[in-house]
Amino acid sequence: MSAAAHAVVEVRLAERSYAIQVGCRLLAASSSYARLPRGSSAVIVSNETVAALYAQPLASALLPFWRRVEIVVVGDGEEFKTWQTLQEIVDGLVDARADRGSTVFALGGGVVGDLAGFAAACYMRGIGYVQVPTTLLAQVDSSVGGKTGINHPSGKNLVGAFHQPLGVVADVDTLATLPRRELVAGLAEVIKYGAIADDAFLAWIEASLPALLSGDRGALVRAVTTSCRIKADVVAADERESGPRAVLNFGHTFAHAIETGTGHGTWLHGEAVGCGMAMAADLSVRLGLIDAAHARRLTAVVAAAGLPLRAPDLGIARWLELMRMDKKANAGALRFVVLEGPGRARLRTVDPATAAATVEAFVEGETGRARTS
Amino acid sequence: MSAAAHAVVEVRLAERSYAIQVGCRLLAASSSYARLPRGSSAVIVSNETVAALYAQPLASALLPFWRRVEIVVVGDGEEFKTWQTLQEIVDGLVDARADRGSTVFALGGGVVGDLAGFAAACYMRGIGYVQVPTTLLAQVDSSVGGKTGINHPSGKNLVGAFHQPLGVVADVDTLATLPRRELVAGLAEVIKYGAIADDAFLAWIEASLPALLSGDRGALVRAVTTSCRIKADVVAADERESGPRAVLNFGHTFAHAIETGTGHGTWLHGEAVGCGMAMAADLSVRLGLIDAAHARRLTAVVAAAGLPLRAPDLGIARWLELMRMDKKANAGALRFVVLEGPGRARLRTVDPATAAATVEAFVEGETGRARTS
Repeated sequence: MSAAAHAVVEVRLAERSYAIQVGCRLLAASSSYARLPRGSSAVIVSNETVAALYAQPLASALLPFWRRVEIVVVGDGEEFKTWQTLQEIVDGLVDARADRGSTVFALGGGVVGDLAGFAAACYMRGIGYVQVPTTLLAQVDSSVGGKTGINHPSGKNLVGAFHQPLGVVADVDTLATLPRRELVAGLAEVIKYGAIADDAFLAWIEASLPALLSGDRGALVRAVTTSCRIKADVVAADERESGPRAVLNFGHTFAHAIETGTGHGTWLHGEAVGCGMAMAADLSVRLGLIDAAHARRLTAVVAAAGLPLRAPDLGIARWLELMRMDKKANAGALRFVVLEGPGRARLRTVDPATAAATVEAFVEGETGRARTS
Repeated sequence: MSAAAHAVVEVRLAERSYAIQVGCRLLAASSSYARLPRGSSAVIVSNETVAALYAQPLASALLPFWRRVEIVVVGDGEEFKTWQTLQEIVDGLVDARADRGSTVFALGGGVVGDLAGFAAACYMRGIGYVQVPTTLLAQVDSSVGGKTGINHPSGKNLVGAFHQPLGVVADVDTLATLPRRELVAGLAEVIKYGAIADDAFLAWIEASLPALLSGDRGALVRAVTTSCRIKADVVAADERESGPRAVLNFGHTFAHAIETGTGHGTWLHGEAVGCGMAMAADLSVRLGLIDAAHARRLTAVVAAAGLPLRAPDLGIARWLELMRMDKKANAGALRFVVLEGPGRARLRTVDPATAAATVEAFVEGETGRARTS
């Protein structure tokens, strides 16, 4: 895989269209930000870990274009995706004298992106923001599509807003400082795009896992670019998730139950999505939608990436309750994104007994483990 | 003024268009809600005062169309327009098992409308809501236009969202239970519409103040309908307040400084707007935009409605600081909506010395009082 130095993915959403830049050495280059609308001040929102590495380089890159650059630092981790941290960011924007012409730069992973994006969505009823994702998960998923929000004890992302960024700058060099566990978690969403939309991409991922796991920049640029392109196409067709966009939640109803049931932060989101995709594939087999061989192939990719396949034992009643709380649920019905074939998925209602059978198979761990052998 | 029993004002915002029904005996009539999209459940959000009067009649009216109707009650007053109350409403929605198909009914004044609307905007990244305003201020202003939000110690409505309601049901019968001070405060916004957009309406208000203050239903229906029509036209032209919509903030930069400077809840919003309009008229004279006679006429209407004309003494430095914090401010410049003639207004930047001269005139109270004599 030769190095693809730089790619741009356009997200087409009428007057809210924006560009995702993917490549190397982007974060600290002023040219990455030259086409954004200028304003009174830039406010970088980051967490303590990422800020230590990248806040100053980003601030230096922004200074040619913004008269003032301020930095707001929050705690690092999913457990900070709360009302409390949201209020801290808003207080930080007030302290930075941010006004309607200010731009927020979300520097970090999905948690920072969701928090900073939601703060930007709410502050003065909406100011502009730019995603500068520094994790693979954020580069391929959360920084694209305009979903922002915080968690609630009763559900992940239960409170939030759709607020499209002004742009995304995804520098794969930042993945070199990412813990391996988080790199692996990010691969779950990359695999997802292959599973739901592009079987050839899934085959490329299967072949490229060693390169991706070793941090090969060319492979990473291709994985991020293709993932963003697939997501951008889906989002452009359904900005507010009324229909087709739901396929992006493949594996996510199971994943959200895992994350909420074990307490946010215990599992990484991508780990839960990895297990959730294997579960959703199993569910698709039980519903007669795909053959067992296809589910085994997807499960094997999940396993080869190093993602978990054993689901936590929350008790079946709690599992069903959590899955009914999922935002995709409607009037108490259980709804899942299921596979219909290689590269094809859709949302459908599933009877509780079938969903419970899948949960039980993965809680025991036998089905999942047997499939990977 | 003969009684106009019922009027409908359409707010045209493409796929977010909705109808404002204005009339008598609307709140408890199921027919008022028959054209709304049905959903899994209805959640009425109200404050303790209004809920005691109207929550049950509203719930009964909704039951033919929604399978479940839940009621969430919050504290009564501007001091409850906080993060804390917002979280309580979200918790109430969770407890009511609200999902994406649920509809929130904001039953009360502007505080309840802004809180419940913002909660609906955030909950699951946006569910539908209906405004059922029970104060004159809410009927003519806050329930129309989709602005929702909460206050921050540093600024009123500093955190919020644009989220259009599915509909508005404005029953003037509810104004019979409104304290006179709040009825008077609501008249400030009615006067505002005449001042910025319709001089004939201002003349009608001058002549009709006795009928309006005595609770004449026909006069109230006409005042509410005409106000909503003016606001709807302005909002339709500029949903997100990037330009023309700013004229609706006539008097509001002064008013927000009064409200924040004295602590939210000390002055009623309409009282602050009344004083703020007289100040903005004075400012317009100082800028040479209108003659003193026109400012005197507007100030006399404000005074005749029973609205205050003397501004609080916050110190001129604090006044300027608060006015710079206003959302209309940009890059620290002071911006005000000023009058250009009868029924005409626009936003413009004002030098601090001129703004300070107006503030000083009204803090002393001589200018304002002299004008009404």
